[in-house]
Amino acid sequence: MLKLCSCSVTDQIQASVQCRFPGSPSPFAFRRRSPVSVSCSPLSRLKLTPVQAVLSSQQKEVAEVVKSGSGSLADLLRLGSLAEDGLSYNEKYIVRCYEVGINKTATIETLANLLQEVGSNHAQSLGFSTDGFATTPTMRKMHLIWVTARMHIEIYKYPAWSDVVEIETWCQSEGRIGTRRDWILKDAATGELIGRATGKWVMMNQDTRRLQKVSDDVREEHLIFCPREPRLAFPEKNNRSLKKIIKLEDPAQYSRLRLTPRRADLDMNHHVNYVTYIGWVLESMPQEIIDTHELQSITLDYRRECLQDDVVDSLASLEPIDGTETVSEHNGTNGSTAAREDADCPKFLHLLRVSCDGQEINRGRTEWRKKPAR
Amino acid sequence: MLKLCSCSVTDQIQASVQCRFPGSPSPFAFRRRSPVSVSCSPLSRLKLTPVQAVLSSQQKEVAEVVKSGSGSLADLLRLGSLAEDGLSYNEKYIVRCYEVGINKTATIETLANLLQEVGSNHAQSLGFSTDGFATTPTMRKMHLIWVTARMHIEIYKYPAWSDVVEIETWCQSEGRIGTRRDWILKDAATGELIGRATGKWVMMNQDTRRLQKVSDDVREEHLIFCPREPRLAFPEKNNRSLKKIIKLEDPAQYSRLRLTPRRADLDMNHHVNYVTYIGWVLESMPQEIIDTHELQSITLDYRRECLQDDVVDSLASLEPIDGTETVSEHNGTNGSTAAREDADCPKFLHLLRVSCDGQEINRGRTEWRKKPAR
Repeated sequence: MLKLCSCSVTDQIQASVQCRFPGSPSPFAFRRRSPVSVSCSPLSRLKLTPVQAVLSSQQKEVAEVVKSGSGSLADLLRLGSLAEDGLSYNEKYIVRCYEVGINKTATIETLANLLQEVGSNHAQSLGFSTDGFATTPTMRKMHLIWVTARMHIEIYKYPAWSDVVEIETWCQSEGRIGTRRDWILKDAATGELIGRATGKWVMMNQDTRRLQKVSDDVREEHLIFCPREPRLAFPEKNNRSLKKIIKLEDPAQYSRLRLTPRRADLDMNHHVNYVTYIGWVLESMPQEIIDTHELQSITLDYRRECLQDDVVDSLASLEPIDGTETVSEHNGTNGSTAAREDADCPKFLHLLRVSCDGQEINRGRTEWRKKPAR
Repeated sequence: MLKLCSCSVTDQIQASVQCRFPGSPSPFAFRRRSPVSVSCSPLSRLKLTPVQAVLSSQQKEVAEVVKSGSGSLADLLRLGSLAEDGLSYNEKYIVRCYEVGINKTATIETLANLLQEVGSNHAQSLGFSTDGFATTPTMRKMHLIWVTARMHIEIYKYPAWSDVVEIETWCQSEGRIGTRRDWILKDAATGELIGRATGKWVMMNQDTRRLQKVSDDVREEHLIFCPREPRLAFPEKNNRSLKKIIKLEDPAQYSRLRLTPRRADLDMNHHVNYVTYIGWVLESMPQEIIDTHELQSITLDYRRECLQDDVVDSLASLEPIDGTETVSEHNGTNGSTAAREDADCPKFLHLLRVSCDGQEINRGRTEWRKKPAR
C-alpha cells in the first residue's frame, strides 16, 4: 500500500505513475541558474502601441531569436517567470471558454490541469527534464520515476471565463522518500487568494515497481532549487491537506459503475492521467449536491495505476460526522450549529476501484459549500 | 433532418444546440468598431527587459486600466487581435502539457477546443454577445439560437507541447439559412500552415425547435463584420469539407457501445459540448489504426443534441472505396497506387447514435495518414 508517511521503501507498490503530471516533482539542474524571466510585463504592453502593420517583421525577429537558441517562441510569449530568488515560479493563465462548466466557472479539472502546466513550466524554466517527467539524471540512470501519492486542492473562488488566474508554485523534499510541490492561486486582476494546493510524489523503481528511498545524489540534485526553509501552501496546523482518508466500505450511498477511460484520457505512456480521476470521483456525486453546492476541497490518495482497458467503479458516501472535530472547528458551539454546518458544507468519502476485482485505485475526500449567489 | 444545403426552414429539427461553441457564428455589433489590438507584440517583448522588481506597481497599473473600463486583464494579456481591416481575428496559443496525447502532440480535441476559443474571442473583440452564444439582439428578441450543423477540421501537422499555434478566424453568411466560420492554423514559429477548418450553423427557434430562415435584420447585424467577398479556408473545388456523408448502416466493422457523458462534458446548458462528440467518434476506431496513423481530417454532421443521461453507441467502418475519386485524385494512376493509398490513408465512416432507440446523433467521416517518423 502506498502510505506516504509511513511506508517501507521496499513495499510492493500497487500504485503506478500518474504520468500526466510532468514537472511536478522537484526541479533540478546541476547548478543554480540565474532566474530567467520570460514574462511579458503588462507595463511594457501598456506603454507600447502594438504595431500590427509590422507584424511580419516582428515575427521574423522572433523566429531569429528562436532559431538562435535563446529561447523557444513559447518562452517568449508565456506569461510566466521565476521569482527573483529563483525559488518559485509564477504564471498567469486566461480561463478559456471551453474550460468552464455548468456553473459558468472553471471546472476543478481545468484548475488541476493548470497546476500540472505551471509545474511543468517551472521545471522547464530551470532547464531540466524536458521529457516532461521531471526525473533527475541520477533517477534516469537508475530507472527511477516519480509516482503521485497524494493531491490536495482547495478552491475558495472559482474563476470565470476570461478571468486571469495567477499561479505560484515551488517544490521541496518530503521526508526521506518523497518530494512535494505546493501552489498558490490568485485572481490576477485583484491579487485575491482563490486557491491553494499541494501534491506528494514518491520514487519508484520502474523495473521492480517498488518504492525506493530518495538517495543523497537525487536529493542534492533537487535541493538546489528548493526554498532553504520549508514553505508550505497550508502552514496552518491540522489543515485538510494532512487529513488521513479512511477507506470507504460497501455499500456506498452513491455510485457510478463501469466508467471507462477514453482515448483522450491517456498520456503518452498509455496511463490514465491524474485529472481523469478527479472527474471520475465527481461522477458518483448526487445530482442535488452538484446543483446546489460547489467543490471546496478535494484530496486524492493514488494507489494503483489505471490503463486503457480498465473499467472503474466510482463510489461516494457522506463522511461520518466527527463530533469532536466539528465542535473544535466551531470553538465549542452547540449541536445545532454543527448540524447546519454539515448540511451547508457536506463532506464525502470516495473510492475508485477496478470493477472486476474491487482493487483500490484511489481513495478520496471532498468538501462542498453552498454555491455563491451570482 | 438537418441537411444544411437543402433543408426546409420549417423542418422539425432533431439536432439542438451544441452550446459549447460560443462565438462561433458571425460576429455582430451595431456599427463597425475600429480594430482593437490587444496583442502583446513579440517585438516589444524582445526589446524590453522585463522588470521583475517593479511587478507589483505594474500590476497596480494594469488593475487601474482594468478598473477604468478600458479592457479586461484578459484583453491586455491575450495574444490576439483583429486584423487591420477588422475582418478577421488572430490569436496565438501555447500548447499546454496536458493537451497532448499518446503521440506527444496536441490531440484533435485540443485543437477543436482552440477553434472554439478563438471564435469566442473574435466575437468578444467585436464587443457583442458576451453571453458566449454569439446571438444578435434580434435573435435574442425572437428566441433564436445558433445550432451547429457541420464541422470540418483538417490537420496537416500536429503541434507538440510548448509549440505556439496561431489561428486566424473569420465568418460570413451561408445561404439563406445559416452562417459559417472558417479558420486557418499556422505554426507561429515558422508561419507554416498546419491546419484548416470550417463550421456551419443554422438558426433555430428555441421554443418551437424548428429551423428558421435568417431574416434581413439578423443578416444585417452579421454582415457588417464579414469579408465583402466570400473568403473560404478551403477554396479548392471538391474539397473534403463539402463531401456528403452517407449514413453508416449496421453492422459496422467497429463499435464502442454505451458511452456516457461525464459531468465535465456538459456546458452551462447541460448539453454535451461539441468536442466530446469528436472523442466519441475516435473511441470506436480500431487500435491498430490509432497506433500507426494520425487523424488527417474529420467531418461531423450534427443531427441531435445529447443530454446528461443519454447513452451513446459509436460505430465505424472503412469507407467504401470510390474508384472514380481515387483515380481522379491521382490523375489517372493505376489501381495498385490506389490500393496503396488506401492502406496508407484509410477513410472511415462514423455514426453516433442513442443506444436505446438508435436515433442518429451524429454522422462523421475521418481520413487518416501514416504517423510521421519523429
